Amino acid sequence: MAAQIIDGKAISEQVNRETAVLAAELMQKHGARPGIAVILVGDDPASRVYVNSKEKKAAELGFRSDKVVLAATATQAEVLAEVARLNRDPGIHGILVQSPPPKHIDERVIIEALDPRKDVDCFHPYNVGKMLIGDQDGFLPCTPWGVMVLLERSGISPAGKHAVIIGRSNIVGKPIAALLMQKAKGADATVTICHSRTPDIAAFCRQADILVAAIGKPEFVKGDMVKPGAVVIDVGINRIADPAARNGSRLCGDVVFREVAEKASWITPVPGGVGPMTIAMLMRNTLRACQMSLNLPVV
Amino acid sequence: MAAQIIDGKAISEQVNRETAVLAAELMQKHGARPGIAVILVGDDPASRVYVNSKEKKAAELGFRSDKVVLAATATQAEVLAEVARLNRDPGIHGILVQSPPPKHIDERVIIEALDPRKDVDCFHPYNVGKMLIGDQDGFLPCTPWGVMVLLERSGISPAGKHAVIIGRSNIVGKPIAALLMQKAKGADATVTICHSRTPDIAAFCRQADILVAAIGKPEFVKGDMVKPGAVVIDVGINRIADPAARNGSRLCGDVVFREVAEKASWITPVPGGVGPMTIAMLMRNTLRACQMSLNLPVV
Repeated sequence: MAAQIIDGKAISEQVNRETAVLAAELMQKHGARPGIAVILVGDDPASRVYVNSKEKKAAELGFRSDKVVLAATATQAEVLAEVARLNRDPGIHGILVQSPPPKHIDERVIIEALDPRKDVDCFHPYNVGKMLIGDQDGFLPCTPWGVMVLLERSGISPAGKHAVIIGRSNIVGKPIAALLMQKAKGADATVTICHSRTPDIAAFCRQADILVAAIGKPEFVKGDMVKPGAVVIDVGINRIADPAARNGSRLCGDVVFREVAEKASWITPVPGGVGPMTIAMLMRNTLRACQMSLNLPVV
Repeated sequence: MAAQIIDGKAISEQVNRETAVLAAELMQKHGARPGIAVILVGDDPASRVYVNSKEKKAAELGFRSDKVVLAATATQAEVLAEVARLNRDPGIHGILVQSPPPKHIDERVIIEALDPRKDVDCFHPYNVGKMLIGDQDGFLPCTPWGVMVLLERSGISPAGKHAVIIGRSNIVGKPIAALLMQKAKGADATVTICHSRTPDIAAFCRQADILVAAIGKPEFVKGDMVKPGAVVIDVGINRIADPAARNGSRLCGDVVFREVAEKASWITPVPGGVGPMTIAMLMRNTLRACQMSLNLPVV
């Protein structure tokens, strides 16, 4: 048996097309254009790549996008001043601070300074709390929401299933657990969350109807850790050495794709699985922020 | 084998004694007296009992306590006006609205109107989010925090254990899961959360090293659902008919105490287990709110 591929590239493109249509409607009916601002502190090359891809996607969807580049030596007060300025800018609906900022910046302070209505990453405690409570009329965190959309658009219902999540990060593991456990359409799973202090992760993995790997360890999940017929969602993006590859390395997930695809019923590839969903949901949150600013229902 | 009893009455009294000492210190060193205000809308008899016991405990600990009683016909605007007044009152550090308010009041709107720094129930999304993120320098929700303190003071470490929680309420199930899964001292459990849509709850219960019953169904957890040596925390408080009882009914938890006590290593009784912890942690949150208002570290 070979698993069906959950095509994150195709599904993210579908989401993006819908977002573009909704954005065009907003412009037509309300004269409003969603605007996103990304604050980049320092010149970490990986961060630059992420910021550029966000800008490019925003432009594709017809959004305004501002990039605010601060020197690596910028003080916390300078970053906060930019946040305050963007909080006030009525043309900017979403603000995000590219992670990780330099060590002298307290990211938590910056995030709490964001107007929660512009917190399109859904990192502000207010929005995190709303998510856990089950109030889904605002923002949802981008990668976890992307996972939920992948399941939904692949026709996979988590209701009554046992979802096992490996990893308890604030950005992925905890919010995916929170979303999957809700009493809500597209959720209603029994959820187990495993992590570095779990003595026998494999034993939990083998129980999973839906297995979400978000542990950040290359190819951690082997074929023998997966129940036949399970749905496997690989959130990991790791670069590992590969002498056979052109540049000596290749991207891989937290799952040994080839082995696990033999046993799973559905699986996300890396790249082309969860990855492209994150940015698609970021743009959808920005659209939602614009809708909220007009007191329109969010879509 | 008979389980050891986790004596919530004794532990809550210990916590309360410490709170009283800390409150006396606050008064001596800073001239500050913790103040709590309870808003009661309508005259639900059970709510009155709860509010009275909160007032009584506050008085015992040397706190100021205000009771604001509004008619069952009070409008939402009237409740919000009281919240706004108490938000401004520098002598009041904790505010809570007794649940459930009458149906015409939107509890969510009331809770979001509370100054998060005075939200001693830890119901405001901002505080719920902080808790999930793992930021424990503010409030923790009272009953879940009480469960953590019961474990800690009974010398039971959840680290590396499998905790199974039955129930996903916003007040108990979800926050207990959130606290137990944290990368933190006294936590670090692998956590499974089961609920009404879990097909075979018993199978999950039998895996639990720590079983938390918070489903609100009298005597739901039977002896054969518990692994020998498990720690069993019973959050349920139910009143059931009992012809043998003096007034024809008795209190019971979500666990069949007699059966389960034969298999568990530790168990909380009902009453006298989790119940008294809730109010003890509410008072501790009020003390913390007073400490925070003075920019002191919370204890």
